[in-house]
Amino acid sequence: MAKEPLRTDYAGELSAARIGDTVRLAGWVAKRRDHGGVVFVDLRDVKGIVQVVIDPDAIPAAHELRMEYCISVVGEVRARMDGTENPDMPTGAVEVGVAEVTILSASDPLPFMIDDRADTEELIRLEYRYLDFRRPPMAAALRARGAAVHAMRTTMAEAGFLEVETPTLIASTPEGARDMLVPSRLRQGDFYALPQSPQLFKQLLMVGGVDRYYQIARCYRDEDFRSDRQLEFTQLDIEGSFWTAADVQAMIEKAVAASVKAVRGVELPIPLPKLTYAEAMDRFGSDKPDLRFGMEIVDVSSVFAGTEFKGFGGALESGGVVRGINAGALGFSRSGLDGLVSDAQALGAKGLAWLVLEEDGTWRSPIAKFLSEAELAGLVERFDARPGDTVLLVADMAKVAGAVLGPIRLQLGKPEGHEHLAFTWVTDFPVFDVHDDGSLAPAHHPFTQPVSLDDMVERPETAIAQAYDLVLNGSELGSGSVRIHDPEVQAKVFEVLGISHEEAQSRFGWFIKALRYGTPPHAGFAVGVDRLLAILLERDSIRDVIPFPKTQRGIDPLTASPTRVTDLQLRELGIDLRPEVKARLTEQAPGD
Amino acid sequence: MAKEPLRTDYAGELSAARIGDTVRLAGWVAKRRDHGGVVFVDLRDVKGIVQVVIDPDAIPAAHELRMEYCISVVGEVRARMDGTENPDMPTGAVEVGVAEVTILSASDPLPFMIDDRADTEELIRLEYRYLDFRRPPMAAALRARGAAVHAMRTTMAEAGFLEVETPTLIASTPEGARDMLVPSRLRQGDFYALPQSPQLFKQLLMVGGVDRYYQIARCYRDEDFRSDRQLEFTQLDIEGSFWTAADVQAMIEKAVAASVKAVRGVELPIPLPKLTYAEAMDRFGSDKPDLRFGMEIVDVSSVFAGTEFKGFGGALESGGVVRGINAGALGFSRSGLDGLVSDAQALGAKGLAWLVLEEDGTWRSPIAKFLSEAELAGLVERFDARPGDTVLLVADMAKVAGAVLGPIRLQLGKPEGHEHLAFTWVTDFPVFDVHDDGSLAPAHHPFTQPVSLDDMVERPETAIAQAYDLVLNGSELGSGSVRIHDPEVQAKVFEVLGISHEEAQSRFGWFIKALRYGTPPHAGFAVGVDRLLAILLERDSIRDVIPFPKTQRGIDPLTASPTRVTDLQLRELGIDLRPEVKARLTEQAPGD
Repeated sequence: MAKEPLRTDYAGELSAARIGDTVRLAGWVAKRRDHGGVVFVDLRDVKGIVQVVIDPDAIPAAHELRMEYCISVVGEVRARMDGTENPDMPTGAVEVGVAEVTILSASDPLPFMIDDRADTEELIRLEYRYLDFRRPPMAAALRARGAAVHAMRTTMAEAGFLEVETPTLIASTPEGARDMLVPSRLRQGDFYALPQSPQLFKQLLMVGGVDRYYQIARCYRDEDFRSDRQLEFTQLDIEGSFWTAADVQAMIEKAVAASVKAVRGVELPIPLPKLTYAEAMDRFGSDKPDLRFGMEIVDVSSVFAGTEFKGFGGALESGGVVRGINAGALGFSRSGLDGLVSDAQALGAKGLAWLVLEEDGTWRSPIAKFLSEAELAGLVERFDARPGDTVLLVADMAKVAGAVLGPIRLQLGKPEGHEHLAFTWVTDFPVFDVHDDGSLAPAHHPFTQPVSLDDMVERPETAIAQAYDLVLNGSELGSGSVRIHDPEVQAKVFEVLGISHEEAQSRFGWFIKALRYGTPPHAGFAVGVDRLLAILLERDSIRDVIPFPKTQRGIDPLTASPTRVTDLQLRELGIDLRPEVKARLTEQAPGD
Repeated sequence: MAKEPLRTDYAGELSAARIGDTVRLAGWVAKRRDHGGVVFVDLRDVKGIVQVVIDPDAIPAAHELRMEYCISVVGEVRARMDGTENPDMPTGAVEVGVAEVTILSASDPLPFMIDDRADTEELIRLEYRYLDFRRPPMAAALRARGAAVHAMRTTMAEAGFLEVETPTLIASTPEGARDMLVPSRLRQGDFYALPQSPQLFKQLLMVGGVDRYYQIARCYRDEDFRSDRQLEFTQLDIEGSFWTAADVQAMIEKAVAASVKAVRGVELPIPLPKLTYAEAMDRFGSDKPDLRFGMEIVDVSSVFAGTEFKGFGGALESGGVVRGINAGALGFSRSGLDGLVSDAQALGAKGLAWLVLEEDGTWRSPIAKFLSEAELAGLVERFDARPGDTVLLVADMAKVAGAVLGPIRLQLGKPEGHEHLAFTWVTDFPVFDVHDDGSLAPAHHPFTQPVSLDDMVERPETAIAQAYDLVLNGSELGSGSVRIHDPEVQAKVFEVLGISHEEAQSRFGWFIKALRYGTPPHAGFAVGVDRLLAILLERDSIRDVIPFPKTQRGIDPLTASPTRVTDLQLRELGIDLRPEVKARLTEQAPGD
């Protein structure tokens, strides 16, 4: 058995204050220079690195050490020789003169270097995730994630919120099409679903008088993996009774600020800015506006109120708008500008007008000659244009103008990376998304309280819901709402959504029943922890902040899951593969 | 929309210090006395209850209030009239004279009373879990659970442990037979498994240099529900590198003591006692000894070394033992004692000898006449017997003696409830369980480090593992071990376990590979949170400390999960019900 204690000190914590002390360290060979008569090893542990010096005449094992061997050493902390101090290393003033080396565990040659470089293929990093963890960027991501989540929990607990564990083997929920299923062995033919969120259970906690709930909850969604998502993900989930949307938002701000502090070391100024959905769409052409830069969409319809330019006049007469952005000193060539016109058309615009303000105060533009002096001057004024600025205009229905200018704004202005953090709330979402054919679909889940029930029934396409999102740097971090607590309102909402009484009963009858027992007004929110961490740590993908993620195809290259299982296992669950799946698998070698 | 704020104060927090203040409260009608001219309501919220007084002439809605209506009231805090104070209520010195009542939400008649009584059938309580939460015992259990888990997390974080989330959609693991499976949609024919524990992932974290890990982890096991278990359960899971079993135990003691403090408000004396497995089996006939009472098993073989009593002499000659317990002043009749003999035989004993010490110092017993004076005196001395005590003896192989006396000891001595807490470590478990036919099965998982590899290979039936359990009041709370960190040792262990190289590779090849990259010595533990809470809160079942548990048949009476799913859902997953299951379901009405 190994000697005890296996470690007296952390390598990364030694300093000049410890000179003269005998220490036992344990860690990995991060670097090795074998000068024949003396061997220098950079010994790495979870706290950092210290240089250890071994005399191979006394300790022949010194020559056997290789990269990433796990070793333990006993020795004396001493000052480095004059001129050999390393000011770039926290422990650079000292070294450990080693009297004893134990190889705890050897290492095969490595599939990639344990360093900062990011040039290793992701699949290889995932296959050897345990070695990836030793690389500084992943080690930092794990620590930051732990710290952020701990800060969130502490904030919630200090505010009097109760952590409650909701079940993860549940009944199939409203969004059932994306449910992951778990066959029951005791009731063959029946299935549990993994939760897409704790939504209905946390609402039941409110009915139960829990008052203030939180949980860092694992959730599941059988997504197509197109957009950097995972089958399982983590959210900070909160709910409270007898509070308002503003109260919810203030609490979420505290929790998010605590995690920003934990990861970035900076105070996030709160309260965070708020935009209504309508403002966000008008000014940024997006319900998740990136506020790290301006380039706001400006409505210049009034400038062209009496225009003789048919391209604009026609749009205005049809109830449309003329809107645009000042893209600043783009310096685009004619072909670059034409490229933008093509982009706009691909986004659904009939066209895109560009105007470049010359040094002499005139606009260079194919349409300049159609515009009056007053209109041209109006553009300078409304866009606060300076010489060199390019203004891009769309004349169309307001929805189309936003759908075109929003993406073009991002294309031209969005910063690289996430050094700056621009949070915003987006509030007052519509109750319904109106499809192009005029049909309605609920914009949030069907338990969201409309601002006005009458509006929802009589003017559904413009009705507003008590729903709000949190947005960071153009990404939706989470959403929440005031929930319906009146079973009659809930029934009416189902009706407007086209969900029959029978369907509502069969899908969530048990939940509607609960609302009939003195349900308090309640509201809540959920923040996506993975996305928040990826942005705070400036990582390209949430896979870089999830300890053991899956690929976009849902595969874990480390364990090769998902895997085949035995027929006995399937039989016990009362299920079988479909014949066509069996046939396909038989054609392949196992494990393909 | 409701008035803001929806609440200025908690009902349960009002006191004489607030007299004269106007407050807005929100909560539930816990009690209502309608005296016609005045209505008294006990208003309950999450913090407690306060009496509110309503004048129905001013506020006619007062007559409409019913039990568990959710209401909000505005009024002035005032002293109760002399003689009407209620010293049994924390808020009993005051009442609120109400100026305004809003019914936020009505309640249907209740399926059971919201009170302390435990006479409601569990199935009904689970069906209406949200109302059960309003009952003081369940509300207290939720709060205690939240507090205990928070205390554990805080303890771990303060000790420098990093919380890391391990995946819950994984590859099927060693104990695969009890895995719950999740069919993959993207790779039809393949399955994820839900984790029985984060075991291999936390070991990979150690390989990755994480050093100190913890997680409150959701785990899954497709158990038969016989012994108060759940399909999903929660454990405090920890692992560390470069530390010893004693270090692990000291850390777990801190976390457990913090949760005891949070729930019971008392300091748990640590370090906790330790017993080896061998001692526990010898003295208590159990590897999870209940130390709340004595009645230890005493070996009196030496007393009968040269006995002429064949019943004992024969057992000793065959390498057996004579062991017994002093059951104290049982006062059993002859038929009661005969009942114990039957119990012992049902447990596998050939017989059970009973001896009652009379006031005159003689033993009353069917076997007394076969024993010598010295033997009879030896029994008095070895069992420290006093007049009235009953001694029960088994002469058999040591294993049988323990298997019989252990349960009889519990039957005769085990206290009701869990007022007293008796923790103990049980250490030095055997590597293998030896079956009656002499075959071996691993006593812990196959990643457990044997104390001596040579012993394990040469004397497997007596080899000791570096494995330890934590026991509370006779229940196993959790187990842990020092893990194998040397791939050669791991290969040897698989070999002795009868797992071929090929099988080991196919089942955990990816894990064995990881061990080849400088794996540190590491050790860890997992504590069952549900069981710990049930004992700390003196609840009969873990279902009473789990917010949304399932029944022993794996059913949630609230949501009726597990449920049927559509054929479309199954088709997308590439699976189908087996024909015999389909046939059976077709015969039943849906939802049966």
